[in-house]
Amino acid sequence: MIDQPISASQTPVNDARLRCINCGATPGHAAPDFRCQNCGDLLELIFPGWTSAAGQRSSTLNPEFLKKLWRERRHSRAAIDQSGVWRFRELLPQFDNEQRAITLREGNTPLYELPHSAGAAGVQNLFAKHQGMNPTGSFKDTGMTVAASFARQAGFRWVACASTGNTSASMAAYAARGGLRSLVLIPEGKISWGKLSQALEYGALTCQLRTDFDGCMRVLSEVIKRLLIYLLNSVNPYRVEGQKTAAIELLEQLDWQIPDHVIVPGGNLGNSSAVGKAFLEMRDLGLISRLPKLSIIQAEGANPFYRSIRENGGKTLTPVQADTLATAIRIGNPASWKKALRVLELSGGTVEQVSEVELARAKAEIGADGIGCEPASAVTLAGLKKLVRQGFVKPRETVVLLKDPEFTLKFHQGTLFSDSLHESEAAVLKPFQHAPVVLDANADAVLRALEQFEKNRPSPHA
Amino acid sequence: MIDQPISASQTPVNDARLRCINCGATPGHAAPDFRCQNCGDLLELIFPGWTSAAGQRSSTLNPEFLKKLWRERRHSRAAIDQSGVWRFRELLPQFDNEQRAITLREGNTPLYELPHSAGAAGVQNLFAKHQGMNPTGSFKDTGMTVAASFARQAGFRWVACASTGNTSASMAAYAARGGLRSLVLIPEGKISWGKLSQALEYGALTCQLRTDFDGCMRVLSEVIKRLLIYLLNSVNPYRVEGQKTAAIELLEQLDWQIPDHVIVPGGNLGNSSAVGKAFLEMRDLGLISRLPKLSIIQAEGANPFYRSIRENGGKTLTPVQADTLATAIRIGNPASWKKALRVLELSGGTVEQVSEVELARAKAEIGADGIGCEPASAVTLAGLKKLVRQGFVKPRETVVLLKDPEFTLKFHQGTLFSDSLHESEAAVLKPFQHAPVVLDANADAVLRALEQFEKNRPSPHA
Repeated sequence: MIDQPISASQTPVNDARLRCINCGATPGHAAPDFRCQNCGDLLELIFPGWTSAAGQRSSTLNPEFLKKLWRERRHSRAAIDQSGVWRFRELLPQFDNEQRAITLREGNTPLYELPHSAGAAGVQNLFAKHQGMNPTGSFKDTGMTVAASFARQAGFRWVACASTGNTSASMAAYAARGGLRSLVLIPEGKISWGKLSQALEYGALTCQLRTDFDGCMRVLSEVIKRLLIYLLNSVNPYRVEGQKTAAIELLEQLDWQIPDHVIVPGGNLGNSSAVGKAFLEMRDLGLISRLPKLSIIQAEGANPFYRSIRENGGKTLTPVQADTLATAIRIGNPASWKKALRVLELSGGTVEQVSEVELARAKAEIGADGIGCEPASAVTLAGLKKLVRQGFVKPRETVVLLKDPEFTLKFHQGTLFSDSLHESEAAVLKPFQHAPVVLDANADAVLRALEQFEKNRPSPHA
Repeated sequence: MIDQPISASQTPVNDARLRCINCGATPGHAAPDFRCQNCGDLLELIFPGWTSAAGQRSSTLNPEFLKKLWRERRHSRAAIDQSGVWRFRELLPQFDNEQRAITLREGNTPLYELPHSAGAAGVQNLFAKHQGMNPTGSFKDTGMTVAASFARQAGFRWVACASTGNTSASMAAYAARGGLRSLVLIPEGKISWGKLSQALEYGALTCQLRTDFDGCMRVLSEVIKRLLIYLLNSVNPYRVEGQKTAAIELLEQLDWQIPDHVIVPGGNLGNSSAVGKAFLEMRDLGLISRLPKLSIIQAEGANPFYRSIRENGGKTLTPVQADTLATAIRIGNPASWKKALRVLELSGGTVEQVSEVELARAKAEIGADGIGCEPASAVTLAGLKKLVRQGFVKPRETVVLLKDPEFTLKFHQGTLFSDSLHESEAAVLKPFQHAPVVLDANADAVLRALEQFEKNRPSPHA
């Protein structure tokens, strides 16, 4: 049943090296915690052979050759070719045995036009890349397939992370798929049960520690020093490599027409960094001729990066006590902020913050386009609206929002902000809130509800 | 941005007609309730021109031509070609304006090998088609894209259904996408809040009626007689047409190698009927040379179809009071049982039932392959295990499970069956249950938990 993958060449085309993002050290191997042993900062993977001329010099990195190869793989029946991550493996670190990659056909996420949201934001061409349509429901899968595969290739039997949500679900799924064991450390009490239940289903050993998230990270740091366990938290640079592919797939979906703006939610900033890294590398290889402006939107209650840029131009970052309903970006001390700062500067993007009310409203507007999303993803539309008002985004420019995929019901019941909302804010949200109506079981009651509805609500695509 | 879809021909190739599945009446138009006005039974769409020779006679229905056309569309940037439903539109009722189909790029769901589950079931080649990876998370989207598009084409502004879960979420999403309004009727109290919140997000008018599900259906029947509202419950035959495409896509993914068995969960039996209809039509058109055996698995607590077949050979069906944790198939009076009976008989398949314990165990086994699923989908693996033991499925035959995508956490905490479980049943489930462990925040405690875990649990792919 297993077909032969479609290979570009038998020789390695991408000789990746580790490098510290701060001091520039280039260790031959990563320490278990993926920190630089000189200065303690993060490591990234670089491709020394990729310069602006690389695409011309090398037949296997030739832009037209790559575009054709990636298209052909859409017809392949090999699992690695069907993956929306491994399909672009010429831009990933070299993996020894293609048949041994751990894949669940991640990536391949749709690019939607958003006519209703475009109207709300005041732009003509608005798209959303729906990264929630991954096997475990989040973009984390795109990074996990790469990092878990490298873990198994290196001989690890256990993988681990400290996570309260999407990361643990994704890690546990790929570990199960690859016959690896997985360890999840979470703070007792503060967890997303829906996501946790996924990790349990995939057989993860899940430990609730009597501490907070940072405490879990400290314990995990010690555990990986004492046992051969592969760390899959966001500091793992192989995850960044997998996450890069969303940007490559996006350009392919746009037929390599470069959008003017790409807008990303900003939590730990790993995904922003990954997407920006992909744009830079694609430009170096000649796959694209210029960079889209990459902008990052944070929630007001979890805005350390926004503050850093506005207050001191990104020189230092002061952690905050994070508090927002957008749980996926409720992060007060983003691990990858220096990487994100670099791609922001190089691409000419900006950073903005949005309130809880703004993001709740944006979420309902995206819903009116028939597309569901987590609050964390709705920040991109809310942020876009501000950027248009500020003139940073022009009405005729093409904009792409990157979005991942529980607070909907509470929002519609009007109880979400019950204690904290000003009257004027409540009035803004009211037209977007539609609680279920309780009625007697007869047609007349339903017909009256229909009439009321028509009266109160603007037509969705008027 | 919108590309021209890749069309087969300008002339209609599929002249669909409505026909009553019971009395054979062929009305020119459907009544609002999609019931036969003679006998009250269900309507289906038939294609009178499709006989076993049609593929030879017609250039646009030639099997090799179609297979090539469908492959080519994978490269198209037109939304309708990117849809895993509309891509196969030569086998759907003719739709007038291809650019006006309401699509969210549904379908395109992955086909996974299940090595761990295959071992548990005792077969060598086991695949699962993961229908949960649709835009709103269930196979309902594949039918909804077709039915909602035909509703809009016919000029309707409102669509409606009575549903407690996936159907309402799917309908509301497609309605929003198409600029239609949607009405959801649900019994007060008995609802899946997660799914309901999706419907609210997409702007559906959601009425909780003080009655049960049948009462909601009765009220809805009256509402659609009194207002121009298009009914999107499972009786709608256009939904069946869209759901057919999962079987076509499956065969394409298997490179048109026919599997020996296809196993489907049995709830209202609409999906089984749709999949079976696709196999029959593909055989008529010469796309496949023989039929896979299509078997249906029900939960013991919702087994009216199983009983009907075993007790009276499918002559009559007696509704039951449905009770199972597999909510998606918790249906006591399946609307499409006659259609399902026909495809079961024609394909040589069978019907089986499984207990709650069997399905919970199967769900955990599928999880060990890195794939999540709803309890309703796990019945297929649980049923397969029985069919292998009975000799109906041979170890070397190729088997495909069809699966859609909250009871996980309770299961792993061991509280799911707390009142109802025999001691021997509890012992069966124990090795599959892994509650989160609560520990003090130090590495020693975690290392002890790891050791304990290694001791107690078999290696996942040993």
